[in-house]
Amino acid sequence: MQTSTRDRIVVAAARLLQRQGYVGTGVKQIAQEARATMGSVYHFFPGGKEAVAVAAIEHSGREFAALLATALDSREEPAEAVDASARLLAKELRASGWIDGCPVTAAALETLGTDSEIQRACGAALHDWERLVADKLLRGGFPADVARELATTVISTLEGAEVTAQVRRTEEPLLAAGRQLARLLRSYEITPANTP
Amino acid sequence: MQTSTRDRIVVAAARLLQRQGYVGTGVKQIAQEARATMGSVYHFFPGGKEAVAVAAIEHSGREFAALLATALDSREEPAEAVDASARLLAKELRASGWIDGCPVTAAALETLGTDSEIQRACGAALHDWERLVADKLLRGGFPADVARELATTVISTLEGAEVTAQVRRTEEPLLAAGRQLARLLRSYEITPANTP
Repeated sequence: MQTSTRDRIVVAAARLLQRQGYVGTGVKQIAQEARATMGSVYHFFPGGKEAVAVAAIEHSGREFAALLATALDSREEPAEAVDASARLLAKELRASGWIDGCPVTAAALETLGTDSEIQRACGAALHDWERLVADKLLRGGFPADVARELATTVISTLEGAEVTAQVRRTEEPLLAAGRQLARLLRSYEITPANTP
Repeated sequence: MQTSTRDRIVVAAARLLQRQGYVGTGVKQIAQEARATMGSVYHFFPGGKEAVAVAAIEHSGREFAALLATALDSREEPAEAVDASARLLAKELRASGWIDGCPVTAAALETLGTDSEIQRACGAALHDWERLVADKLLRGGFPADVARELATTVISTLEGAEVTAQVRRTEEPLLAAGRQLARLLRSYEITPANTP
């Protein structure tokens, strides 16, 4: 399948945002990485850098959601599923040489206090990931309010552990987070409602 | 007490790094915020922007360590102490209009894959904070290996919850993290070794 020029621009922007943040990424570098002209970047994204970044964050958000959904679905029990998610993130992070971490954290922090679309896109991505975890917990029999609060904490913990793992260049913070989150989930002693 | 020019430069740089990251912060802006000349910035920091940033991250690291130590010391029980820390961070974050978050996350992510002194300074700050939590757990009777792993997870969780709270402009992610971390710590059912 041929990748369209627009797709190449979005994917290139997503990788650059993940590796160097929003502020340090210029439209020229995005065009170069995407093997596209500056003209075609502005053709597809008349809003320029902010518009490309929003599309890139949305793309990365969906990509991370797919990875998370795969990991969560790989285990029946929610605690094991969350631990498996942390281990998968650790594996992917190591494979990228510790540079392809959370696609939204840097961009979110660089644009704090601005009412930019970047902030909105980062918030929407975090929300989607939390919903995947909450749904897994609900299916596992957790009450709705507990599932919601735990989902927020699971995503926060994975997000923070990813940064620590990147700075330290070791998967240990993510593996520790996975083990401790699994323990936290098990402390609720939830029995699935639909087991025989 | 009169603040020295060097101190003003470090504090101004720390605030700017916290609010807009490393890449978007220039020496000129640091000088302006510090009411100092460009010449005096280079006088105190011949290494330029990177050298100022390292001093700023070290300063912020100590500042955050002091805040964390105060919160941890405010409660005897480790679980309550960690919850109190999350609540204090939430209060401070709200007071700053959601912009003064973790002083190292953005700078760390923007300089990934570089062997810069920035990465080293961020790593050292994270390590210091973890040690404060680990010491609190050890004093509370936790075995050394459990204390170390929990300390890494506590700092990762607070770090991630702070970012989520900033993007969402609400303290809820931090308050949730505090409650869930307290629950996690209590699940170990540690009895302090030195209680009567």
